[in-house]
Amino acid sequence: MDEIELKNEEVDKEREAKVHEELLQALKNKDEVKIKDLAEQAHPIDLAIAMEDFEDEDISYFASLLSDELLAEIIEQADEDLQNHIMKIMQITRIMQIFQYMSKDNIVDILGNMPADRRKDVVNLMKTGDQKIIRNLLGYEENTAGGIMTTEYISVRNTLTVSQALATVKDIAPKTEEINTIYVLNEKKQLVGTVSIRELLVAKNGDIINDIMEDNVISVEPETDQEEVARLVSKYDLHAIPVVNKRKGLLGIITVDDIIDVIEEENTEDMLKLGGVSKEENVDSTLWDSIKMRLPWLLINLLTAFLAAATVSLFEDTIQQVVALAAAMPIVAGMGGNAGTQTLAIVVRGIALGDIEWRGNKLRILKEIFVGVLNGAVTGLVAGAVIYWMYGNLYLGIIIFVAMIANLVIAGFFGFLVPVVLKALNADPAVASSIFITTATDVFGFFVFLGLAKTFLPYLLK
Amino acid sequence: MDEIELKNEEVDKEREAKVHEELLQALKNKDEVKIKDLAEQAHPIDLAIAMEDFEDEDISYFASLLSDELLAEIIEQADEDLQNHIMKIMQITRIMQIFQYMSKDNIVDILGNMPADRRKDVVNLMKTGDQKIIRNLLGYEENTAGGIMTTEYISVRNTLTVSQALATVKDIAPKTEEINTIYVLNEKKQLVGTVSIRELLVAKNGDIINDIMEDNVISVEPETDQEEVARLVSKYDLHAIPVVNKRKGLLGIITVDDIIDVIEEENTEDMLKLGGVSKEENVDSTLWDSIKMRLPWLLINLLTAFLAAATVSLFEDTIQQVVALAAAMPIVAGMGGNAGTQTLAIVVRGIALGDIEWRGNKLRILKEIFVGVLNGAVTGLVAGAVIYWMYGNLYLGIIIFVAMIANLVIAGFFGFLVPVVLKALNADPAVASSIFITTATDVFGFFVFLGLAKTFLPYLLK
Repeated sequence: MDEIELKNEEVDKEREAKVHEELLQALKNKDEVKIKDLAEQAHPIDLAIAMEDFEDEDISYFASLLSDELLAEIIEQADEDLQNHIMKIMQITRIMQIFQYMSKDNIVDILGNMPADRRKDVVNLMKTGDQKIIRNLLGYEENTAGGIMTTEYISVRNTLTVSQALATVKDIAPKTEEINTIYVLNEKKQLVGTVSIRELLVAKNGDIINDIMEDNVISVEPETDQEEVARLVSKYDLHAIPVVNKRKGLLGIITVDDIIDVIEEENTEDMLKLGGVSKEENVDSTLWDSIKMRLPWLLINLLTAFLAAATVSLFEDTIQQVVALAAAMPIVAGMGGNAGTQTLAIVVRGIALGDIEWRGNKLRILKEIFVGVLNGAVTGLVAGAVIYWMYGNLYLGIIIFVAMIANLVIAGFFGFLVPVVLKALNADPAVASSIFITTATDVFGFFVFLGLAKTFLPYLLK
Repeated sequence: MDEIELKNEEVDKEREAKVHEELLQALKNKDEVKIKDLAEQAHPIDLAIAMEDFEDEDISYFASLLSDELLAEIIEQADEDLQNHIMKIMQITRIMQIFQYMSKDNIVDILGNMPADRRKDVVNLMKTGDQKIIRNLLGYEENTAGGIMTTEYISVRNTLTVSQALATVKDIAPKTEEINTIYVLNEKKQLVGTVSIRELLVAKNGDIINDIMEDNVISVEPETDQEEVARLVSKYDLHAIPVVNKRKGLLGIITVDDIIDVIEEENTEDMLKLGGVSKEENVDSTLWDSIKMRLPWLLINLLTAFLAAATVSLFEDTIQQVVALAAAMPIVAGMGGNAGTQTLAIVVRGIALGDIEWRGNKLRILKEIFVGVLNGAVTGLVAGAVIYWMYGNLYLGIIIFVAMIANLVIAGFFGFLVPVVLKALNADPAVASSIFITTATDVFGFFVFLGLAKTFLPYLLK
């Protein structure tokens, strides 16, 4: 299976590489026919990936040979860096032509990344109607439903017949992204239902839309966070979700391909935050950016490391008398950290998937505590036995056994509670949880192990 | 924004809770009219969620009042546990009726979870044609394209006219999941292109499909891993992706809503694996399951903890003479672990998103090493200064500074290399990486710090 997977990925990567190579060669030879031919046959996304490596000169030359429509498609597929770069080196008049073929949400994304004065120039050159739409869209926060919605959708009046509606669909279809779902409005332009293109094709020509539409519509408001939008689309298996204002007026729709991007983005964010990295960072961030983004987190961790160190330093006398404690103490603290991370991973993911809320967690916490007791007992028994075998001191073994149970209980308890409380306080459960939990398991782990050792010191010295 | 998000989530959760409560009440009162009314109005997914809490008796009674079509929809939306439970308590004759309204991929998923003899009974009762399809689908691995594809799609011959094709679409539409894309086959039943329903509606009635179709089709084979399928759908913004055999024969399609499930599943898996938890576990796993799934990981970690302890025990003499080392040594080891986790999170995510391959990483590793040097220098300086201030020993401060830089370089180096090597070996980069890296940073961190202390012991004792 792995080989097949590899093969499939290779085929895709080879296609990418081939487009890249042939295009570069053709550009070097200024072979217009070949360039146009390649551009026609390749997928826009592969062309976009190839362009990432091009010199400015090649980009300009290549763009000059493409139709506005194809160039628009390529830019829509390109990543943000390339988009911004192309926009920088392209003439405003050409940009205006390309925008004709782009959906409004993509135009807004691109405009949002332009320097303010250039953005102003571009918007001012648009038609008055478009200007209004774009200015509205630019007003929404980037990570909200309003920020990712498009205004290209098909809507029909609820009083139309099926054949009238079909005529409208044929009319508007070339200009929209999503055609699967048609949105039904009443006389006040309020969203009252949806009809799928399938139902429209199957229904009788004379049927009235109002009678065949689905009137139980899941919608969001423009301020809704994109993560919540993605959750709803995923839960109800939607192809698109409408965005409405307080008066149920239809403002736009969000299509499933944008939702996939949101899901990937939010998952990346959660995973990176759990690892103590900014969501802005990726493998190709510059050295300086990486340092800037990681250092604050490391400095916070340093603070908690000193808390742990201070805990240890309380017991320096004891350690000096039984130096084996120095070797054994990281075991208890480290295992607590591992167990805490396990609980944390389960809970943060559960929150992200909407399985965990503020209430109804008593039994779950109780379960985590029992998991801590039992896993602590097993690992503590193993650790105790090994320590006994290494140092020949039974009491040291017993102390590590008890300390391990205590620390794994703490790990389960805080591993569950901390992210849930953070979520209830409207803070991000992924970002700060791990620091709380490792601090708790470090400080408590050292304290309980060394504290027990100090209390039973006479037995350890025997 | 957070308030709005909360509000939106609350509205959704309230809807869920309301359906649950009213339905339970109506079932208790045996109020058939009310039950049917509720079932009619609520979303199938909300009904499925409500049923999770029902007694067997209530499930049977509720199911007896529903149409086969609605019950099929509810079961399709239900989670696996509920699906299996319903299948267990339902009569086989009713199951057969319900299956009429389900898509083949869902039927196969449900059959796959049934006890073998019951599955055999059910399949034997199917029509011969269906039996063949189902037996074929059951043969594919669960996490491959074949395992998640459906055989309900619309295909037309490439020689048809647009109006002929539209007639076919209208004919097949009620029976398929995906109608956006129509698959075009040649006389050998090979997949040669696709036409979107939009293009079909816009084209002239007399146009030939072969002339208007898109012939550059992205497809996968049935053995392709679902993660790779998801990557392609996401990259090319597809609504569905066709599955073809070696001879380009169309076997089925995978729709975007199933892809979203795959993405969520794979992301869950990656995040849980990084945290040292099995992908099978969630917040509501039983106590026993949680222990069984987490304990092996903790025992592996215990082994590495002993490696670290053994490293420390090499230097027991040194620690006995300068007991401050015991307090300071977890700082270097812990910070290395944190820095390693940062690099690891970036790299594992980069691999999952397809940004990192085996080649072309020299500069990236070099960058990680420099990040280690610089972040190590800053945190080492702070740590050294604090240690100097606490213990009044300049040399101890210098040692922690040097050890911190060394350990953060190790963290960056292994944090990058380990997941990339695991990926190249076709192993899962998420699952085993963190254990390698924390072992490396712990063992090396203790070794370099205590080793330096031992070497310069006379200065520390001054």
